[in-house]
Amino acid sequence: MSKKDLKIAVIGGGSSYTPELIEGFIKRYEELPVRDIYLMDIEEGKEKLEIVGGLAKRMVEKAGIGINIHLTLDRREAIKDADFVVTQFRVGGIDARIRDEKIPLKYDVIGQETTGPGGFAKAQRTIPVILDICRDIEELAPNAWLINFTNPSGVITETVLKHTNVKAIGLCNVPIGMVYGIAEILGVDPKRVNIDFAGLNHLVWGTHIYLDGEDVTEKLIDSFAGAKSLSMKNIPEFPWDPEFIKSLGMYPCPYHRYYYLTDKMLDEQKKEAATVGTRGEVVKKVEQELFELYKDPNLNIKPPQLEKRGGAHYSDAACSLISSIYNDKKDIHVVNVRNNGTIADLPDDVVIETNAIIDRNGAHPINIGHVPAKIRGLMQAVKAYEELTIEAGVKGNYYTALQALTIHPLVPSATVAKKILDDILEQNKEYLPQYK
Amino acid sequence: MSKKDLKIAVIGGGSSYTPELIEGFIKRYEELPVRDIYLMDIEEGKEKLEIVGGLAKRMVEKAGIGINIHLTLDRREAIKDADFVVTQFRVGGIDARIRDEKIPLKYDVIGQETTGPGGFAKAQRTIPVILDICRDIEELAPNAWLINFTNPSGVITETVLKHTNVKAIGLCNVPIGMVYGIAEILGVDPKRVNIDFAGLNHLVWGTHIYLDGEDVTEKLIDSFAGAKSLSMKNIPEFPWDPEFIKSLGMYPCPYHRYYYLTDKMLDEQKKEAATVGTRGEVVKKVEQELFELYKDPNLNIKPPQLEKRGGAHYSDAACSLISSIYNDKKDIHVVNVRNNGTIADLPDDVVIETNAIIDRNGAHPINIGHVPAKIRGLMQAVKAYEELTIEAGVKGNYYTALQALTIHPLVPSATVAKKILDDILEQNKEYLPQYK
Amino acid sequence: MSKKDLKIAVIGGGSSYTPELIEGFIKRYEELPVRDIYLMDIEEGKEKLEIVGGLAKRMVEKAGIGINIHLTLDRREAIKDADFVVTQFRVGGIDARIRDEKIPLKYDVIGQETTGPGGFAKAQRTIPVILDICRDIEELAPNAWLINFTNPSGVITETVLKHTNVKAIGLCNVPIGMVYGIAEILGVDPKRVNIDFAGLNHLVWGTHIYLDGEDVTEKLIDSFAGAKSLSMKNIPEFPWDPEFIKSLGMYPCPYHRYYYLTDKMLDEQKKEAATVGTRGEVVKKVEQELFELYKDPNLNIKPPQLEKRGGAHYSDAACSLISSIYNDKKDIHVVNVRNNGTIADLPDDVVIETNAIIDRNGAHPINIGHVPAKIRGLMQAVKAYEELTIEAGVKGNYYTALQALTIHPLVPSATVAKKILDDILEQNKEYLPQYK
Amino acid sequence: MSKKDLKIAVIGGGSSYTPELIEGFIKRYEELPVRDIYLMDIEEGKEKLEIVGGLAKRMVEKAGIGINIHLTLDRREAIKDADFVVTQFRVGGIDARIRDEKIPLKYDVIGQETTGPGGFAKAQRTIPVILDICRDIEELAPNAWLINFTNPSGVITETVLKHTNVKAIGLCNVPIGMVYGIAEILGVDPKRVNIDFAGLNHLVWGTHIYLDGEDVTEKLIDSFAGAKSLSMKNIPEFPWDPEFIKSLGMYPCPYHRYYYLTDKMLDEQKKEAATVGTRGEVVKKVEQELFELYKDPNLNIKPPQLEKRGGAHYSDAACSLISSIYNDKKDIHVVNVRNNGTIADLPDDVVIETNAIIDRNGAHPINIGHVPAKIRGLMQAVKAYEELTIEAGVKGNYYTALQALTIHPLVPSATVAKKILDDILEQNKEYLPQYK
Repeated sequence: MSKKDLKIAVIGGGSSYTPELIEGFIKRYEELPVRDIYLMDIEEGKEKLEIVGGLAKRMVEKAGIGINIHLTLDRREAIKDADFVVTQFRVGGIDARIRDEKIPLKYDVIGQETTGPGGFAKAQRTIPVILDICRDIEELAPNAWLINFTNPSGVITETVLKHTNVKAIGLCNVPIGMVYGIAEILGVDPKRVNIDFAGLNHLVWGTHIYLDGEDVTEKLIDSFAGAKSLSMKNIPEFPWDPEFIKSLGMYPCPYHRYYYLTDKMLDEQKKEAATVGTRGEVVKKVEQELFELYKDPNLNIKPPQLEKRGGAHYSDAACSLISSIYNDKKDIHVVNVRNNGTIADLPDDVVIETNAIIDRNGAHPINIGHVPAKIRGLMQAVKAYEELTIEAGVKGNYYTALQALTIHPLVPSATVAKKILDDILEQNKEYLPQYK
Repeated sequence: MSKKDLKIAVIGGGSSYTPELIEGFIKRYEELPVRDIYLMDIEEGKEKLEIVGGLAKRMVEKAGIGINIHLTLDRREAIKDADFVVTQFRVGGIDARIRDEKIPLKYDVIGQETTGPGGFAKAQRTIPVILDICRDIEELAPNAWLINFTNPSGVITETVLKHTNVKAIGLCNVPIGMVYGIAEILGVDPKRVNIDFAGLNHLVWGTHIYLDGEDVTEKLIDSFAGAKSLSMKNIPEFPWDPEFIKSLGMYPCPYHRYYYLTDKMLDEQKKEAATVGTRGEVVKKVEQELFELYKDPNLNIKPPQLEKRGGAHYSDAACSLISSIYNDKKDIHVVNVRNNGTIADLPDDVVIETNAIIDRNGAHPINIGHVPAKIRGLMQAVKAYEELTIEAGVKGNYYTALQALTIHPLVPSATVAKKILDDILEQNKEYLPQYK
Repeated sequence: MSKKDLKIAVIGGGSSYTPELIEGFIKRYEELPVRDIYLMDIEEGKEKLEIVGGLAKRMVEKAGIGINIHLTLDRREAIKDADFVVTQFRVGGIDARIRDEKIPLKYDVIGQETTGPGGFAKAQRTIPVILDICRDIEELAPNAWLINFTNPSGVITETVLKHTNVKAIGLCNVPIGMVYGIAEILGVDPKRVNIDFAGLNHLVWGTHIYLDGEDVTEKLIDSFAGAKSLSMKNIPEFPWDPEFIKSLGMYPCPYHRYYYLTDKMLDEQKKEAATVGTRGEVVKKVEQELFELYKDPNLNIKPPQLEKRGGAHYSDAACSLISSIYNDKKDIHVVNVRNNGTIADLPDDVVIETNAIIDRNGAHPINIGHVPAKIRGLMQAVKAYEELTIEAGVKGNYYTALQALTIHPLVPSATVAKKILDDILEQNKEYLPQYK
Repeated sequence: MSKKDLKIAVIGGGSSYTPELIEGFIKRYEELPVRDIYLMDIEEGKEKLEIVGGLAKRMVEKAGIGINIHLTLDRREAIKDADFVVTQFRVGGIDARIRDEKIPLKYDVIGQETTGPGGFAKAQRTIPVILDICRDIEELAPNAWLINFTNPSGVITETVLKHTNVKAIGLCNVPIGMVYGIAEILGVDPKRVNIDFAGLNHLVWGTHIYLDGEDVTEKLIDSFAGAKSLSMKNIPEFPWDPEFIKSLGMYPCPYHRYYYLTDKMLDEQKKEAATVGTRGEVVKKVEQELFELYKDPNLNIKPPQLEKRGGAHYSDAACSLISSIYNDKKDIHVVNVRNNGTIADLPDDVVIETNAIIDRNGAHPINIGHVPAKIRGLMQAVKAYEELTIEAGVKGNYYTALQALTIHPLVPSATVAKKILDDILEQNKEYLPQYK
């Protein structure tokens, strides 16, 4: 990668997150010589693409640097000879997400974008599309790196690594958000904080926390337990019970609330759905407001309102990863990679979320070995669900799908699993060619 | 074991199951030359011991064979030089079981003797006692085989194998009951039916079913799915959904209903608790009736009413296992043994329930390797719970106990786990010296 | 397999061992209703086939049972609809074996039919042929069991299991020979002796020895160490050093002498080669004598001289295995099967030699777990050699072949490995189509 | 480790290597604020300690920095409150090494300081001493890091990690030497070269070589194979055969010559022993010359002649590792660490040599997973030997020692192993208290 002029393809370029990404490339222009950014979207997203693309162009212009922004509906044009393909698309858009949230809630089950049946539905819609994209990459840009942000990020990355020849790394802003959260509690620069992460995407534990290399996990748990923090915009911020956190002895991610506080979270979701709307419905409005803002021809920076959307640190995660690959940095990022024995309690061919050394040849996870029983069982149960979800999504097998949902820890019975599955298949018919 | 005159110690000898066991020894007298059976119980069980001991003596007398029945409250006398120690005791008796059922139900959680928080409570009461018994065996009968029936049988056997030097095999009548259930469906002699079992005690799957060696799993699933069968006296006999069973492609054990049909089972438990009483309360009455029967000085056989109690095939499982060890038979039994890599997806040092060759040197499991993802996750999640349950039970560690209950798939949140745990510790205070 | 009239195909039917096999079927006719035995051989073996086939027919006639012996050069005719295919062919015959022995000896390396470079050469010649046979079986007798005796038996069986869909079990008469050897030392009926076997074909250790179920390993080692026994006709019977055997604490197989006593065995081989000839040369004469005997139209039983050939217990191993499959016996045989985690220190997909339960569905190994370090390293080193040997044999890859020979524990250097390899490829040109 | 004034204890401080180490600390004084270096040696080494200690003091003085050099025969004084303990002692000195080389050669077996029976003997002498040192560290400096250079470095580090509570990292200058060797071939700065290392100490393969992050392994093999290079002062520089290197596809370390070119290396050793003397005898003279140089009161730098001794890059490896720990650098070093699943084909509790991230909490290996069969078998065989060597060395068990030597790939038979073992035990009597 001695070449100087990088081409970046952004699939789902019309996303409201795009300005975050553009800002990231602008900030790193010195170390990351991007020449062309192709923002690609589908016909239905054309309007959004044009709005956000306009903003992107103004941002680059203001920065006075030589990045060319291209807007296109032609995926093959975007991918051809790209050095990096960033995927941030959503099949079915926000409306599909809202359905994903509402179907499980109907049966008193957590209705969430990525966790539980909602994530299953999103995976089923996304898998045929990501496989298509990868066929294009295999043909048109076989040396490109796929940086996947499309959720459920771990599941989608595992699909790519199991079923294609594309070099892929999955990303999520949760781990970096946890680092920032700890830094805030400690009142220090986030750079002084390191966390050993182990787990799956949206089910990752911070097993040890370091300040300037000193292990402060125990100290921090004492002061922290019960604090209202370490959460995300997307997720209700219930405090953790201090004794529970002490018994756990490590940091759960915000999404753990769906597992460790299921009853409370479900009550909250039902209450919200009945009042302000599901998270998807709220986001829909936020997005509309954002696009109104983006239209302003005088706006030429990432507007601060984007933070409300939930994508904080997205640019940090993505652009600094790309830079570490390009510059062969050998620094540590938290990524979604093939397990390959890193966590001895999971199969080799699944994807985990963990600390890895990043260089020009990709992500090299730091070895973990066996994890403690207290986090092992849940990690294994969710991973088994994910493996079946991928198999169902690739083959369109009803029975595999039924098993996937049945064994999900948040689904109370095979009976409910079946009802939810039938609703999902019915309501997403147009997006599920594999089930025909 | 060339010796001819075997000594059997039965810990919990006053149990209503004892006649089943005595019948087993009588039937096998030719191949299993038992001379002395010590029925041992504690002071509180003295009356029952005398009643059931009287019946046992009459049964032996009627059979006209040379077995001597001894009744004792002295555990060391019972164990000294025994060849086999059979454990079938219940710490706290039926009343403790009823409490185990009621505490979780209070929080809308499955309340069951061995599955879920009820099994956790039972394990905490039993662990200190089984460790005491094992110290006696180590001292007084170091070559004895411990045949454990005390529930939760897998957890108790794992405790013994991890924390003592006693040679132990765990038993359960569920697998043999499943074989008889299939034989009934097929209308054939149970000897013609074989099942490959894999899993944990009370969470065991019949992965393949054979009739005269031919694999009939698929055939059987088609005809069977939806049938009201393969259940146990202890467990409500809800039929399985045909599509669910087809998607599973194997035979769940009756206890799987608590996991796969949680909502329905919980409703049923709550309904029963409010009307006829919990299963423990029902059993309490059945037991009282049984002991009334046992008192009859003219009764000298196992009364048929015992079947209602739920212990069918108990004698088959126990006595034929003992005979296979004594006679070095090298036949196949389904037992609870150290995993040691048999199921590649579980740690080496845990106990699994599986097919094993039995000979004079113990139980040698037939290798399994990896299990399918659809049963792997649940098996791993419950095993992690069991490992923490044992650790908590041995050390009396509150935090470990809290994690054990939190990660149990049937417990909805850490909050509920804590409430249940506090109730369990409070209501079982006198039986939990390790928590002091 | 409820059918009554079995068809057996014997590939390499013209072998001098065939009468042993025929005798085995005759003895078991009651329990194993064989109707047709197809003795198949290639054009070059026609004369031998007719001689040994004639004897086979006379043996069956004398026994007065309804087995039909068919002689054929048409492999597809032999295999079509067979229930069992027994492979005992040798590509290149005895002359190729003699070359296999002489090439390594030229470089001061053990020259042996199955162990070391000789076994490598034999594998390279055999692999293309066994794959061809398996294509026929897949097409013409997809339900047949392949019982492989062709050496190197473990390597050939692993080739079949890795590269075809044929149901195969590998056999060897070494383990049963070790049982008979121990029985002889103890002066008891071999049926009273059991051995736990673990390892690879021709590299198998008897880890525990039982008499009537009692572990007599230690006792036996004391009396046995240094005894001149437990060997085979094929292998010089050097006594083991008593202290070495005590330090090993288990029973090596006769072939272990090539590894544990390399220097002495090499000296002996060189001495023999210079005087009576290599073992292959000796066998060549024995075979000629045997065929002279076989021609005798009055001979209608297996002649006792066959024992000298080295195939003792061959019929026991093969026919009793076939009977256990046919009759769903669930008894224990020592076989070559897919590891699948049985020995935790070897890959899943390799073949090991170990105790297994045999029933209508094949061989189910009894779990072993980790083996002691003292036998682990050698087992792993030889297995790595075997894996590369198979890969080289299937692909005809020179570099893989060079690595296979280089890492063999009996080959002193890459330089010698290359010389031996080049000689092997040159002298076996006509049998190695895969290297073209 | 916020403290500013570090104390370093050097066990075996009288070694001729010490100036190399002192130079390393002087060069890094800015980033590594060492205040006290205790050079400790035993009574027999007093003279050397004073000579080399004098030079060390002059070197520090010349550098004009505030490091205090202390000379002591009191190990406890040296260790007390040390931050780092560096071990570079040799039990029995050079004379013992010469015996280690000569004993195997007597039986036509490679006689080498660390590889084969010579390394076994060295391990047996060293193990009791390192365990003693670790008891001191546990008591007097429980937070200290032990940086072990004493050979066989992997075996000694594994002994410490298995049998003590000391935090230890093993080091060797072979991997860094390989990096420098490649840089020389490429004609580039060594900083631009990275190698993925996997294996054991003195048996490590460079599986991939990178220049500026680009994988140049294949390219390099083509140009390199046959080159006379990548060797060490200690080891005869025979060229590799080009075809062998191509078939291997990776970089063997110089010590691999003992395994891959055993015959040639043995011839060379025998020739040298008969002429210039064994390597130990040569080194003995080099050392005497070095100490003559060191005595010169005008010498105040590391003399260039030290390079001949074979310890090139020793200071780079040791001091930069210490600095990475102290400064929490999170950079990559090649070290000897607990495997813990990093290489999936070796047990968890053994020590491997591999790339690891170094920070204040120690060495965190980058995950490897399974290694190719071509390097797996030899790695496993040597590791099994090492495990038995450690067990024998700790317990002084003759039988375990006999097995260790027997299974070493360079020892041709149990018979030779026994002779060598008996010679080793006899000639090292005074250093082997554990065998009494």
